[in-house]
Amino acid sequence: RINGERLWDSLMDMAQVGPGIAGGNNRQTLTDEDAQGRSLFAQWCIAAGCTMGLDEIGNMFARREGTDPDALPVYVGSHLDTQPTGGKYDGVLGVLGGLEIIRTLNDLDIKTKHPIVVTNWTNEEGTRYAPAMLASGVFAGKHTLDWANDRVDADGKRFGDELERIGWKGEEKVGDRKMHAFFELHIEQGPILEAEGKDIGVVTHGQGLRWIECTVTGKESHTGSTPMHMRKNAGRGLALVTELVHEIAMKNQPNAVGAIGHIDVYPNSRNIIPGKVVFTVDMRTHLLDKLNGMVAEFNERAPKLCEDIGVEFSCEIVGQFDPPAFDQGCVTAVRNAAERLGYSHMDIVSGAGHDACWINDIYPTAMVMCPCVDGLSHNEAEEISPEWAAAGTDVLFHAVVETAEI
Amino acid sequence: RINGERLWDSLMDMAQVGPGIAGGNNRQTLTDEDAQGRSLFAQWCIAAGCTMGLDEIGNMFARREGTDPDALPVYVGSHLDTQPTGGKYDGVLGVLGGLEIIRTLNDLDIKTKHPIVVTNWTNEEGTRYAPAMLASGVFAGKHTLDWANDRVDADGKRFGDELERIGWKGEEKVGDRKMHAFFELHIEQGPILEAEGKDIGVVTHGQGLRWIECTVTGKESHTGSTPMHMRKNAGRGLALVTELVHEIAMKNQPNAVGAIGHIDVYPNSRNIIPGKVVFTVDMRTHLLDKLNGMVAEFNERAPKLCEDIGVEFSCEIVGQFDPPAFDQGCVTAVRNAAERLGYSHMDIVSGAGHDACWINDIYPTAMVMCPCVDGLSHNEAEEISPEWAAAGTDVLFHAVVETAEI
Ligand SMILES: NC(=O)NCCC(=O)O
Ligand SMILES: NC(=O)NCCC(=O)O
Repeated sequence: RINGERLWDSLMDMAQVGPGIAGGNNRQTLTDEDAQGRSLFAQWCIAAGCTMGLDEIGNMFARREGTDPDALPVYVGSHLDTQPTGGKYDGVLGVLGGLEIIRTLNDLDIKTKHPIVVTNWTNEEGTRYAPAMLASGVFAGKHTLDWANDRVDADGKRFGDELERIGWKGEEKVGDRKMHAFFELHIEQGPILEAEGKDIGVVTHGQGLRWIECTVTGKESHTGSTPMHMRKNAGRGLALVTELVHEIAMKNQPNAVGAIGHIDVYPNSRNIIPGKVVFTVDMRTHLLDKLNGMVAEFNERAPKLCEDIGVEFSCEIVGQFDPPAFDQGCVTAVRNAAERLGYSHMDIVSGAGHDACWINDIYPTAMVMCPCVDGLSHNEAEEISPEWAAAGTDVLFHAVVETAEI
Repeated sequence: RINGERLWDSLMDMAQVGPGIAGGNNRQTLTDEDAQGRSLFAQWCIAAGCTMGLDEIGNMFARREGTDPDALPVYVGSHLDTQPTGGKYDGVLGVLGGLEIIRTLNDLDIKTKHPIVVTNWTNEEGTRYAPAMLASGVFAGKHTLDWANDRVDADGKRFGDELERIGWKGEEKVGDRKMHAFFELHIEQGPILEAEGKDIGVVTHGQGLRWIECTVTGKESHTGSTPMHMRKNAGRGLALVTELVHEIAMKNQPNAVGAIGHIDVYPNSRNIIPGKVVFTVDMRTHLLDKLNGMVAEFNERAPKLCEDIGVEFSCEIVGQFDPPAFDQGCVTAVRNAAERLGYSHMDIVSGAGHDACWINDIYPTAMVMCPCVDGLSHNEAEEISPEWAAAGTDVLFHAVVETAEI
């Protein structure tokens, strides 16, 4: 078993870096806080006897050697970046859980045949730079490095420039590593495990996602002196599309979701009718056909709704992945580990996207989930218990060590 | 007649200060650009032989002496601050038109009995600091100076601090001046004069306004892993209220308007369901009963719409004025001036709020309007012709000089 107290202490130490305003964290990707979090993680890994690798997109790889020089490493990890108002565990548990495996192996003086590599993937959250899981996506060949470097944040700052600025751009070519397998531990971020009273979720599938960035264009004009019939109010386009997204999600129940989280209004003045609104629609479900159907309905109806009120609508996909099915061998290793350790468990579909979803496309991959209080995540009040964290990391430990062979 | 070419040159010179991104201006109140615009105006006034007064809220008063030491001054003016994406004429024409009167009187070597004072009122636009017409409101006793100084912008910066920072806070007590009369020249900002082919609008009344700042509170959570039935999406509250405001305005036609121009979404991340949305409703009409009825309907229905979708609604009034009726004597002076000069004219109701609306409460006041292209204002593409500007200023000149007596 891993050392639950040490794991918890490290989680709390990392939470000191980039504190939020309500008990959580604001450690968005490629900020100074991200750099600080990376340094702390690197220090811990080096102290645990690992060598640290760094690729051109800032992915960090802390390696503990194996006994067989020809054996490919077993990878484990997640991400240290957070939402602007994020929790202390989303991503962090998967990285520090990986580190805890190394520390436990050191304590027990166990050597594995395969090396073990703990990874911190850059920009998983996608809040500052869309899409989410950007760097694991480049690693898996979904995007080119140049394209990733050219992403811009709301202030117009390039991803590539910000990565250089914080000093965490490496020399190693992205994707130049082969994996024996990849395991990711993550909090569920949904309510199912807690409601079912299970310690462990064995993740068999994930939801697919589409991020559709929409621009509604009207005409800026005076809110007081422009007669109603002369208005082109882009804010009304946003309103109608907000309700359309909700309606489409509701009629695809169960297991479909839709919302708009990001909205920028131009010029955003109390007495100017919005001339332009840019916003991102997030739609998900775990069945590819259903997901494509939702998007098709959206693409058909959203432009019409806007046309009817005299504003223009355009959109583009800024993030997408299809519903993943994880590797049966790796999933079985997770399920067996939970069983062997005596933790209650159930098979589960991941509601969120994870770096594991991309890595699963190129190497055998699985995920371990632990519950979180009220299913709440992407909220500073995100909470888990030390017992849940320890149980998840125990299962991760056994699945990884079984796969890495002693 | 005034010198139309000189007036136009000054308008173009002022438009160099705080240029926008599309041919207009971004010279928001109490910014460095505002300070620069004030300096340029002060320089011109001093060169025209005026003395410059400055009160504690930054209102500027350029005075040309009269011949009777006991006669109260005739005031004329408007504002130099602009919207973030504002035009070159909204406000500016009224200030520089006032300066052009002084210059013309100097050219003609005419002395008036009453002094003439050209005023630049601070923060007319209300975009950075609500409410609009803040400083003329303090002058007219509608707000206290302390309350005005405590207004904060979106970055949390206090009005009073920013006024000191830009160096345009004076010693004179706000409202410590008596006026014989006040005249304001302004572009119409609406389509009526152009459509009717009139040179001059004789403003008899104005619309009343209510700015209602609303907060919809939901619960931040993950857009992917939060099931639909567990969501509290504050963005849907915004959507429903946007359409409610539109519906209320439409059913109070003719001559009622409503929209939401300012919207802030928290935390504004693509994969976080909005936990909070703050936005400002702008509703106007020229009949007080109708305006109160619109607000009453809003107050009744908005909270229910939000309650029905499980989010909380609260609101407060952050700006308001009742429909003003301008002084009959001053209005007649404007109408007579247009008639005498041979300009086509019509009586008109102002769609926008103006400093004149507050001053009208304490001293005899009237307004002169000139057309603007397509009725477009609060847009960088706002446009007028040099001829329109000159005609409006001619009428202002004659109305002011008649009132100031030769
Ligand atoms: N796990 C997680 O919150 N990932 C961010 C990407 C997503 O929105 O699902
Ligand atoms: N004239 C003008 O645009 N004033 C700003 C206040 C308002 O919104 O009416």
